[in-house]
Amino acid sequence: MAVYTDITEDDLSRFLAAYDAGTLLSYKGIAEGVENSNFLLHTTKGALILTLYEKRVDPNDLPFFLGLMHHLAERGLSCPLPLPRSDGALLGELSGRPAAVISFLEGMWLRKPAAKHCREVGRALAEMHLAGEGFAITRPNALSVGGWRPLWEKSAARADEVEQGLEDEIAGELAALETGWPKALPTGVIHADLFPDNVFFIGDELSGLIDFYFACNDLLAYDVAICLNAWCFEKDGSFNLTKGMALLAGYESVRPLSDAEAAALPLLSRGAALRFFLTRLYDWLMTPPGALVVKKDPLEYLRKSRFHRQVRNPAEYGLSR
Amino acid sequence: MAVYTDITEDDLSRFLAAYDAGTLLSYKGIAEGVENSNFLLHTTKGALILTLYEKRVDPNDLPFFLGLMHHLAERGLSCPLPLPRSDGALLGELSGRPAAVISFLEGMWLRKPAAKHCREVGRALAEMHLAGEGFAITRPNALSVGGWRPLWEKSAARADEVEQGLEDEIAGELAALETGWPKALPTGVIHADLFPDNVFFIGDELSGLIDFYFACNDLLAYDVAICLNAWCFEKDGSFNLTKGMALLAGYESVRPLSDAEAAALPLLSRGAALRFFLTRLYDWLMTPPGALVVKKDPLEYLRKSRFHRQVRNPAEYGLSR
Repeated sequence: MAVYTDITEDDLSRFLAAYDAGTLLSYKGIAEGVENSNFLLHTTKGALILTLYEKRVDPNDLPFFLGLMHHLAERGLSCPLPLPRSDGALLGELSGRPAAVISFLEGMWLRKPAAKHCREVGRALAEMHLAGEGFAITRPNALSVGGWRPLWEKSAARADEVEQGLEDEIAGELAALETGWPKALPTGVIHADLFPDNVFFIGDELSGLIDFYFACNDLLAYDVAICLNAWCFEKDGSFNLTKGMALLAGYESVRPLSDAEAAALPLLSRGAALRFFLTRLYDWLMTPPGALVVKKDPLEYLRKSRFHRQVRNPAEYGLSR
Repeated sequence: MAVYTDITEDDLSRFLAAYDAGTLLSYKGIAEGVENSNFLLHTTKGALILTLYEKRVDPNDLPFFLGLMHHLAERGLSCPLPLPRSDGALLGELSGRPAAVISFLEGMWLRKPAAKHCREVGRALAEMHLAGEGFAITRPNALSVGGWRPLWEKSAARADEVEQGLEDEIAGELAALETGWPKALPTGVIHADLFPDNVFFIGDELSGLIDFYFACNDLLAYDVAICLNAWCFEKDGSFNLTKGMALLAGYESVRPLSDAEAAALPLLSRGAALRFFLTRLYDWLMTPPGALVVKKDPLEYLRKSRFHRQVRNPAEYGLSR
């Protein structure tokens, strides 16, 4: 659930005067985004999203995030488009916070996606990877392989509270990934958090991608591995091969994976599972009881990590070769 | 802040099929309403509000609330209009809760209303009082004079925690109001909670009234007294006579107060101040620390109660005679 910074109609109207956004008719704080305060605006020119960036977002990253959305939207990807101010800037300030006005994307995220939706997600991810080419700003991925050990060291001593033997198991897995992590695969801008709640559909049609606030430069195939983790497992922990096939076929219909990328998929998927396991484990152990954050179960990603460890061939994800 | 019941796109689309509401394009949980979950919907036919009634609302009251909005809107008052289902009902069920679809009212509530806005509020309140005539269902006011003693008895023993001497002061005030409360004034449907956050404006134009979930049958002039309390005091506790004059003149431009109503205004205003003092005191004393509710300071209404007690003449509120 979002933090809400209340804003007055006067302040907002004055802020909007710097945009070609029409006259303000209404604004509502919406329950979306964990890191920021978001408002849905109606103006005489239509619907917009106003985002106030709260403390958890580094202001130095905002030119990357907003510039990227602008870059992707200009290249035809369906994603929210930041509106420029009359001075050309994509970022302003409201209620003492960095703030941006972004086009409103119609659509809904799917609580129960099917294989046909996974195909659309794969296709959109590949389109994003191509559209990201030529974007001038770079942002390293703080949550890739180099970031996992410092994160793990904050939780390791208490890991066995979650499951007996976990400290040894994760230490081994982390060492194996650090040793084997591929270095020569194609890189580019990745979304890095393309979970179902960040992909909008109207009916069965994908209407767009949102929430680029984890986007960064990294291995493109690592983004595919994140999506395999996020979209292709069932609630009972089983891997749905039909969904895997659909997601990978959708991706390859736009951007075929190289042989090296395909071969790395099991390892990259282990890495993606560990990355979400580690952040969830940290939140699980460190969040005080009664806090406003919904704690997600780290064991979901431990189970996925174990699944990936026994995969020997990318065909087991549904990759056709 | 609202409680959020999450709903799936499938369930919502199926629920909406019973309405002439177009095709669903998006829905967002919004941070409005303390008692209910509210969603802002976009459909091919425009914007709508979906309300899920949570536990704090008595389902037996819903036909009154929804029927009243329908009655008022049909008589030309600008307020949200519940959409009928294909079977004519105003109420359905979604995610195990009573649910209604209501027209979306553009506009914003004013964080800093001025006298000109108070005039519009007075006018709209009187229009609501006239438009309410002929509404067939009745709902007694559980928070009028008869309800104050049971409420007070839950907090009285701890009142001195808030301010020394408060138990005696409020006991005396409550007894005085019970003895002197007028019985022969005109009655009708009152809003009973017309605070600034329930009145929408676009620019300086009042665009409508919302949140009829405290509406009930009671003395019409008591509703005026509630508005004097809600709109005409400054942050420092002082009464703004210019705002009082504007609010009362706005009201009387549509529905002039009788001499008896005018004479009762100081007592009714004391009653309204006590009513909000008592609910706030109760919440203040009973809400566990760390709960999700914003506790409003009961002392604000204690100060208003003391102000009203020294008023001798309705002219002191700005009533012209």
